Amino acid sequence: MIKVGIVGGTGYTGVELLRLLAVHPEVQLTAITSRKEDGLPVADMYPSLRGRVNLAFSAPDKVDLTQCDVVFFATPHGVAMAQAPELLAKGVKVIDLAADFRIKDRAVFEKTYKIDHTAPELLEQAVYGLVELNREEIKGANLIANPGCYPNTMQIGFAPLLKAGVIDAGNLIADCKSGVSGAGRKAEIGILFSESSDNFKAYGVAGHRHTPETTAQLQRLTSDKVALVFTPHLVPMIRGMHSTLYGKLTKDISNDELQKLFEDAYAGEQFIDVMPFGSHPETRTTKGSNMLRLAVHRPDNGNTVIVLVVQDNLVKGASGQAVQCMNLMFGLEESLGLNTIALLP
Amino acid sequence: MIKVGIVGGTGYTGVELLRLLAVHPEVQLTAITSRKEDGLPVADMYPSLRGRVNLAFSAPDKVDLTQCDVVFFATPHGVAMAQAPELLAKGVKVIDLAADFRIKDRAVFEKTYKIDHTAPELLEQAVYGLVELNREEIKGANLIANPGCYPNTMQIGFAPLLKAGVIDAGNLIADCKSGVSGAGRKAEIGILFSESSDNFKAYGVAGHRHTPETTAQLQRLTSDKVALVFTPHLVPMIRGMHSTLYGKLTKDISNDELQKLFEDAYAGEQFIDVMPFGSHPETRTTKGSNMLRLAVHRPDNGNTVIVLVVQDNLVKGASGQAVQCMNLMFGLEESLGLNTIALLP
Amino acid sequence: MIKVGIVGGTGYTGVELLRLLAVHPEVQLTAITSRKEDGLPVADMYPSLRGRVNLAFSAPDKVDLTQCDVVFFATPHGVAMAQAPELLAKGVKVIDLAADFRIKDRAVFEKTYKIDHTAPELLEQAVYGLVELNREEIKGANLIANPGCYPNTMQIGFAPLLKAGVIDAGNLIADCKSGVSGAGRKAEIGILFSESSDNFKAYGVAGHRHTPETTAQLQRLTSDKVALVFTPHLVPMIRGMHSTLYGKLTKDISNDELQKLFEDAYAGEQFIDVMPFGSHPETRTTKGSNMLRLAVHRPDNGNTVIVLVVQDNLVKGASGQAVQCMNLMFGLEESLGLNTIALLP
Amino acid sequence: MIKVGIVGGTGYTGVELLRLLAVHPEVQLTAITSRKEDGLPVADMYPSLRGRVNLAFSAPDKVDLTQCDVVFFATPHGVAMAQAPELLAKGVKVIDLAADFRIKDRAVFEKTYKIDHTAPELLEQAVYGLVELNREEIKGANLIANPGCYPNTMQIGFAPLLKAGVIDAGNLIADCKSGVSGAGRKAEIGILFSESSDNFKAYGVAGHRHTPETTAQLQRLTSDKVALVFTPHLVPMIRGMHSTLYGKLTKDISNDELQKLFEDAYAGEQFIDVMPFGSHPETRTTKGSNMLRLAVHRPDNGNTVIVLVVQDNLVKGASGQAVQCMNLMFGLEESLGLNTIALLP
Repeated sequence: MIKVGIVGGTGYTGVELLRLLAVHPEVQLTAITSRKEDGLPVADMYPSLRGRVNLAFSAPDKVDLTQCDVVFFATPHGVAMAQAPELLAKGVKVIDLAADFRIKDRAVFEKTYKIDHTAPELLEQAVYGLVELNREEIKGANLIANPGCYPNTMQIGFAPLLKAGVIDAGNLIADCKSGVSGAGRKAEIGILFSESSDNFKAYGVAGHRHTPETTAQLQRLTSDKVALVFTPHLVPMIRGMHSTLYGKLTKDISNDELQKLFEDAYAGEQFIDVMPFGSHPETRTTKGSNMLRLAVHRPDNGNTVIVLVVQDNLVKGASGQAVQCMNLMFGLEESLGLNTIALLP
Repeated sequence: MIKVGIVGGTGYTGVELLRLLAVHPEVQLTAITSRKEDGLPVADMYPSLRGRVNLAFSAPDKVDLTQCDVVFFATPHGVAMAQAPELLAKGVKVIDLAADFRIKDRAVFEKTYKIDHTAPELLEQAVYGLVELNREEIKGANLIANPGCYPNTMQIGFAPLLKAGVIDAGNLIADCKSGVSGAGRKAEIGILFSESSDNFKAYGVAGHRHTPETTAQLQRLTSDKVALVFTPHLVPMIRGMHSTLYGKLTKDISNDELQKLFEDAYAGEQFIDVMPFGSHPETRTTKGSNMLRLAVHRPDNGNTVIVLVVQDNLVKGASGQAVQCMNLMFGLEESLGLNTIALLP
Repeated sequence: MIKVGIVGGTGYTGVELLRLLAVHPEVQLTAITSRKEDGLPVADMYPSLRGRVNLAFSAPDKVDLTQCDVVFFATPHGVAMAQAPELLAKGVKVIDLAADFRIKDRAVFEKTYKIDHTAPELLEQAVYGLVELNREEIKGANLIANPGCYPNTMQIGFAPLLKAGVIDAGNLIADCKSGVSGAGRKAEIGILFSESSDNFKAYGVAGHRHTPETTAQLQRLTSDKVALVFTPHLVPMIRGMHSTLYGKLTKDISNDELQKLFEDAYAGEQFIDVMPFGSHPETRTTKGSNMLRLAVHRPDNGNTVIVLVVQDNLVKGASGQAVQCMNLMFGLEESLGLNTIALLP
Repeated sequence: MIKVGIVGGTGYTGVELLRLLAVHPEVQLTAITSRKEDGLPVADMYPSLRGRVNLAFSAPDKVDLTQCDVVFFATPHGVAMAQAPELLAKGVKVIDLAADFRIKDRAVFEKTYKIDHTAPELLEQAVYGLVELNREEIKGANLIANPGCYPNTMQIGFAPLLKAGVIDAGNLIADCKSGVSGAGRKAEIGILFSESSDNFKAYGVAGHRHTPETTAQLQRLTSDKVALVFTPHLVPMIRGMHSTLYGKLTKDISNDELQKLFEDAYAGEQFIDVMPFGSHPETRTTKGSNMLRLAVHRPDNGNTVIVLVVQDNLVKGASGQAVQCMNLMFGLEESLGLNTIALLP
């Protein structure tokens, strides 16, 4: 059994890790830390776990995380970089669900997140945890930078097109929509039910933190200069993410060939569903599951290719992806504990 | 492996059976019938099942259900009574999620459902599938009448009080609230998003079909005459049911004793969570899971006892309950395939 | 033109007052105070008011409210009692949307709200602002205690039955459901979208502040001792309130006579809609309007009478009621500025 | 008083017309037709109108619409073209909320809507009812083709840029999101609450009927060849529309100049709110009102300009726009009856 610690288990990615790991056949939940909730049974905060998770939150100084085999950080940015060095030194694997190790370029990271990086020596060894694009590296990794939820969809959706060199890398548009849980479990007016229900809006159009991360990753796939316009929106639903990706075709290519690019790229992937050309994937078909579904469109057979990508932002977009990485890092079957089917309706 | 057939797999209890049974370790999905959708792959109607359920719907006359070990009926009222006799005669077990066998009194059934009962000879042998009140009978049953979703909550909530004889059986009030999926997957104006979102209403106050079923079952628990006022309401959420039950205390009893009645009644039950006295269970703590949670209240320590009961109407209120019955009928561990944790948030 | 001041215009009852008063033909919005938002244009906080309300919030000490003809308090409990004495002394009328003057009995108030009452001398002259039960007193009032949203529905629904003496005053049950806006515009986890959407729960079952207010008002209608069990619930919708009221009949009375009690009680009322016997009023039929709709039921012609009452908690349940009072206090037509029709769908 | 008839008052644009016209000071509602609901009081179908609209639906053959001054068609496509010729011949003005007269090119119309045009002789005289781009023509019109909801936002958002010639007309992308009421009041599975709540999806990506209408109207604004990619999505909210428009800048232009293009274009418009550069308009700030709000963005000061446009799809996107046209056609103040403020929260 893998002994698992979770730092910062009070947020939505934290409770989602608990939901997945509590039924994972090879995991023993060992410690969950929260400075603020020290002593509180986890199931008192999340009654969905009553009878299933008997741990209580512990203050960080009351628990020895080095006894774990792997520690997940479901924390605000900045926490993992402070604690990872010691854990790694003691042979504990680390999976960070925040952004601390997502951007290799320290200067870009610090400009984007407006904090100093206190463990820059780890940036090199950190492995970007997007399994379908990076599987082999993840298998041997000790430190995982779990991707952001939006970047996940943009990379899976644009990758086959960029690798094949059929679209203009300098003219990518990603019009993305996220459920409200993506904003986290924070006491803020803007995400109150009475403010965000029955409403739709864009936000952060001038610049979102996920743009540099995505651009850097996409750049690894092509020698052309990548330029991305990313527009996030807030949807009145709890879970779910829908990215509508626009690329301009630069090559003469048939629709069948377009479709084949995706089918070949993701052949054999258990968690990527390439739907028939022209389909309309719905976010609800991924709710609570680790599936990402996509479909390719080409309006009027013109020079614009559209890729529609959906996932559950808390599963494939966060905690499910992290568990998928953990499985690989420990030599387990990649899908272990991730086989539940989406809740529909 | 148990060979399972599903008659009428296109509705919400049908797809919920599929979601649960597709990952059940002892089940082999063998046939799903739908006259209207003959030939359509199940996953084309419910893309959440893509890659997980490869069956197609079959017209009833194209499939031999007698090859199954058990057949679930997720059909409108009237279908199971027509097909069950032949199946039972051939040794196939039957679990009916509709009302055909819920009411023992044929006259009451026919008055309530306004159809003739075509298999009255089976009413006697049919076992009412509320596991926690009827476990031993279910183990030996060949024909199960799965309870209605509302009746489930009313019985679990009132039973300990009626059995102990501490409330007035002639003055029961059940103010119940259901998510919209309880109305089924029917093309009707009243359950359109634009009609039922951002709205709340009562319905069927003058008389709902679940009243006779519940009254008859409650009557089995007490020698006093049961009289129940049942008021259903529609909540703008997909899944979830919340019943607020009111009883008038007729005995001098302390709050601790009240609480103990429930803890004793459901001690050891895996799917009934008796929360601390005075708790407020939320429907979302059961979403997608087979758990039913309840809490006891007594305002101002007066003579009114309130029991708050929540469940997922499609799981513990329908398909999960049915799978729980199946497990018992085949000698399996009762919770097999039913251990997923509620999706929260 | 009536010069109007609003103290505490940043909450939901505040912005609702602004929505109504900005188009009221006899009102001149003169001042809106907010200590925290001093200087902020009101329309920056509520863009729905852009181009329609040009005022900015003022710190309380920067504005002379005694220049107003009437001041509305859309504040937390405790503010109006501090400021009302001076305003009243200067001849300014006061309408308090909070609870400061709702309960005549100072001891009960202080026990219920857990604050000292600093203006107990005003309790006597304060008039309870439920127009349909108290119209004449309101016309001559200088200080209005606007009713709580729940109490409004319970009084309108129980009043005809209690006045006629046909139900047991000592056995009233009110099972009430409110949209989330009733919880106000506060940065609290429990009312986040991701916590309260797709969910249903009861709250405050052990004792809600609206119980003493309602009991005291109902007691004015009957010489029998009133005892009320009040159970509030939270519905995943922004606006709307639905109260399901249960009474036990103590007299032999026909359904027609029951219905007539209500039709007579509210004959000529512009904002009370007595629907046909056995109807199911929906909250959405009142959304954004000052209408309250109700319907009477009697299951199985037994001894339980059910009254279903719906209103928009922010209009008839708060700000619309307050404007209705203002109209009466200034000798205007009662419905002035309150004639918009509910937004459906 | 203007005598108004409504053909097809049972859908959402019909009831929205009733909501607006019932309180319009210069309108007398004269007739509402529905073949199916002949004799049914309008308020029985829409209880929000109880006490406010006393008309009943009439079968078309039982009412003489030529007695009206103006007739609105809130019907499926094809009805207005059948009845308009006679009405116009008798001097009755016609406002069609469907598509019959939106596309001047008969062949394009017939290809798009897959029906024959039976009154092609009227296509020439029909005036496209987008007030802010077409005000003078509307004043003198007898036959109005009310714009589609999506086209409204795309035209208002792209017009200043195209007129100024600062973007590439051949590379327009409109990523649009609509509330579910845009799909109408039809008994269809796909728009059930349990299917479209807590979900997000694109639809009609391969080709939506609003593309030819929009392209043709945009083409009137520029001599360059217009090419538009339009991607509609369904949002789990009842009302509201958000269009995210992308254009590629072809001229050197500052952000201040971009903003000024919009402020100049819509200076003095009562129903167009040009928000400060970089704002994020929310659909809820227009709910129930005739306002359209927009904001201009330019990510990283690059060559992509983004215009965010929001409106209530049933008001400015349909019935409100139609009433605005009516006011102009009858020489009334343009905003008469359209001054209610959005319902927020």
